[in-house]
Amino acid sequence: MKLLSYRSADRRSWGALVDGEIIDLAAANPGWPTMAHALGDAGTEGIGNAVTAAANTAHRVALDSVELLPVVPDPQKVLCVGLNFEKHRIETGRERTEYPVIFTRFPDTFVGHGAPLVRPAESESFDFEGELALVVGHGGRRIPSEDAVEHIAGITCLNDGSIRDFQSHTHQFTPGKNFPATGSMGPWLVTLDEIADLAALELTTRLNGAEVQRAPLSDLTYSIPEIVAYCSSWTELRPGDVIATGTPGGIGARREPPLWMKPGDVCEVEVSGVGVLRNTILDED
Amino acid sequence: MKLLSYRSADRRSWGALVDGEIIDLAAANPGWPTMAHALGDAGTEGIGNAVTAAANTAHRVALDSVELLPVVPDPQKVLCVGLNFEKHRIETGRERTEYPVIFTRFPDTFVGHGAPLVRPAESESFDFEGELALVVGHGGRRIPSEDAVEHIAGITCLNDGSIRDFQSHTHQFTPGKNFPATGSMGPWLVTLDEIADLAALELTTRLNGAEVQRAPLSDLTYSIPEIVAYCSSWTELRPGDVIATGTPGGIGARREPPLWMKPGDVCEVEVSGVGVLRNTILDED
Repeated sequence: MKLLSYRSADRRSWGALVDGEIIDLAAANPGWPTMAHALGDAGTEGIGNAVTAAANTAHRVALDSVELLPVVPDPQKVLCVGLNFEKHRIETGRERTEYPVIFTRFPDTFVGHGAPLVRPAESESFDFEGELALVVGHGGRRIPSEDAVEHIAGITCLNDGSIRDFQSHTHQFTPGKNFPATGSMGPWLVTLDEIADLAALELTTRLNGAEVQRAPLSDLTYSIPEIVAYCSSWTELRPGDVIATGTPGGIGARREPPLWMKPGDVCEVEVSGVGVLRNTILDED
Repeated sequence: MKLLSYRSADRRSWGALVDGEIIDLAAANPGWPTMAHALGDAGTEGIGNAVTAAANTAHRVALDSVELLPVVPDPQKVLCVGLNFEKHRIETGRERTEYPVIFTRFPDTFVGHGAPLVRPAESESFDFEGELALVVGHGGRRIPSEDAVEHIAGITCLNDGSIRDFQSHTHQFTPGKNFPATGSMGPWLVTLDEIADLAALELTTRLNGAEVQRAPLSDLTYSIPEIVAYCSSWTELRPGDVIATGTPGGIGARREPPLWMKPGDVCEVEVSGVGVLRNTILDED
């Protein structure tokens, strides 16, 4: 099942993509104004039942008539794992850490598939970071890694776009990871029941059609279950929370000369079996 | 004017403290369910008018009959400045940075005045960090430092309680700063019109009555206007957002032997002219 969030005629909604059409699950279920509400209330199985129930109603809208929003537009927490592919860690010159490196992004740093990524007036060092992100379904604290998949609603593509000069202002990454509309998430969430093997997925980033990053998810230093276990050891995960699992080698900042995203460029993040997240870069007004 | 958030008979509300009584501004103003809504809608001046209008109504409740919540229980953003007092920077052995060090805390890491701070099962290295925090009134982006005070609704006391072993798992502070209920904020916000000079305020932290930190706010490496200007250069500040301005020297981790907060201890953070934020430490159930 594919779930997405969108805006149509100035109304924000979310739904399931079925045969190229969106079934509007907010309109069909007044208790579920957002996907996060529905994940917390009924989980992906309950949402699946709601899709069946709504399939023959009028709550349908054409995919190409809507503006896609970040898969979860309003997560309470966005946790990002840094340096989680060995080649990327080495290219940054960082020591190996004993634990996953975790930083955070605010929800307003993300746009959806098809919306422009905004290069801010403050910087030209706008870099791509293709990632797989997971969306929390059933929340929890102190989730053992062997139970982690039971807490994941599904996965999506994420561009952890970074303003490199601000990221290295100090040892904390926060500023460079939190400019508005510098990241993206989408186009949709694919529920976990449709993913046979998380580690068998492949992640690819393309800039203007040229491949700039590629890695199998099996190369993650900390696996998805290990990440869920670690993060939930110190924070409660809630339905709709997002965890970005880290970017492979190949970022623009470590190329000679550096390869920055500039206005008019098109950046794509693809996760095999999930989809392609595509965004054009725009200079701020 | 003193503004606070509270829970009374399982209802969450907020109000102004007048002559030892709380005027319930949520009950009196249905369009303002939270302080953040009111700050965005009317600012502190509009809130002041609402206090006058509600003063002779039945919307009053005794301060000692309520449970205080964090001053802002639901901020969209909590930004914390690290290493912003020179003595604290030196005690941590960190190099001086060219910009403020910024990390983030999730709202669920805070409790209000009088509520227990929770030492998690995972660690005994639970440290205090007394701080002054500002609450954003009128939001904005790219706020020049000379305009910063126009965007500050008021100030409060904050305990940036930290789990030191998790904070140093990697170079990013996130895990050690984000255990649930390890920080506190309160007891109330004092609006900026009642503060003659921010830099003249003094910050004191006491553990079981013994002074463990003391510094004048004039010792901040980056001043409050400079912090507002820097943060708003890369993120939009919104009504109710919280910025913690950094802790002075004297933290428990840098003492010999280390001084950790343990169950039964009482930690107080006082900002002169604002109040005393007091919390007892409790072991997790």
